[in-house]
Amino acid sequence: MRQASTILSFTTPGRGLTEITREVAGWLGTTGIGEGLVTLLCRHTSASLLIQENAARAVRADLAAWFERLAPEGDPYAHDDEGPDDMPAHLRATLTGVTLPIPVLGGRMMLGTWQGIYLAEHRRIGHTRQIAVHVIGE
Amino acid sequence: MRQASTILSFTTPGRGLTEITREVAGWLGTTGIGEGLVTLLCRHTSASLLIQENAARAVRADLAAWFERLAPEGDPYAHDDEGPDDMPAHLRATLTGVTLPIPVLGGRMMLGTWQGIYLAEHRRIGHTRQIAVHVIGE
Amino acid sequence: MRQASTILSFTTPGRGLTEITREVAGWLGTTGIGEGLVTLLCRHTSASLLIQENAARAVRADLAAWFERLAPEGDPYAHDDEGPDDMPAHLRATLTGVTLPIPVLGGRMMLGTWQGIYLAEHRRIGHTRQIAVHVIGE
Repeated sequence: MRQASTILSFTTPGRGLTEITREVAGWLGTTGIGEGLVTLLCRHTSASLLIQENAARAVRADLAAWFERLAPEGDPYAHDDEGPDDMPAHLRATLTGVTLPIPVLGGRMMLGTWQGIYLAEHRRIGHTRQIAVHVIGE
Repeated sequence: MRQASTILSFTTPGRGLTEITREVAGWLGTTGIGEGLVTLLCRHTSASLLIQENAARAVRADLAAWFERLAPEGDPYAHDDEGPDDMPAHLRATLTGVTLPIPVLGGRMMLGTWQGIYLAEHRRIGHTRQIAVHVIGE
Repeated sequence: MRQASTILSFTTPGRGLTEITREVAGWLGTTGIGEGLVTLLCRHTSASLLIQENAARAVRADLAAWFERLAPEGDPYAHDDEGPDDMPAHLRATLTGVTLPIPVLGGRMMLGTWQGIYLAEHRRIGHTRQIAVHVIGE
């Protein structure tokens, strides 16, 4: 049994979802671990991680509109030092969470056919986001 | 230290929660692992996993009504190729997430007295859903 | 490779967020595990776990108001045996979830600079809450 760790960095183009499945799978491949558990942690409080439909682009637009509806920018927030998009970003990050544990078998993450891993940027402007990744197995 | 992996399949009766605690515990028992970590991944984008109250049936009804309120079927969605219940299903799956890591001790998952593991079907019609399960420990 | 398990107990002062980062890190330090994976499970259905901003206090107030808006006490719930704050507490716990897997490297959890681990109490009155903690690594 062995393990490996890394930090993957992604520069987001601003608010929205960036698929990172390929990058995570690529790093997993370099570890040579065939069966095990990979865990991701987004090291930020205004960006988050989720697993969603990797096919239909319209799903991403609907998700964005839904985030906007559940945690709107217009609401009166106590925390607004960093701009009107900051507190909604924290709330939207809370909605999906910042951690993802994913079983690995046959050298591949056990995601379903239509599932992809997404980094959700919740600030208006793009940022460089760090994802800590750990794998354990053999 | 060792590990084991499987896929458990469940046929849901349509929208709602199906408790799967016993099936997961049953498989865990066959691995003989007494202390460790079990991780579940629902391999679908319109079904999800959550840990909730396993006693009161009314809790499940309230949860269903709440999912309906936060991600209603009536909203205008861009993604509607697969019917009016599809995009709300993706959103509701996003709400609870599709992964669950659970510590194991004394051969049992460390769930609280009132906690059960639930597979949430978010489509109107029942489906066969696959849950990838991994355990590591000794 | 080795592992360790414990249960950490926290007495909450009533509804709100209690930071538990230091207690988890303290226990992790006693295990001597430098690289690995730590996993937390809140063993209750009306309290939950999340990772959020550990600096600005206003963020916590906004989070509380947002929980109240998404799962209000005033709604008519089928499950109300344990008081009007019980079912909203279950819903709010569902919103953030009760599990957190966190990669460890260099003897520290890989949290970002501004991230802290919070136990969210969703009942009006304080309770003693148990968090099962597991770590595997070396």
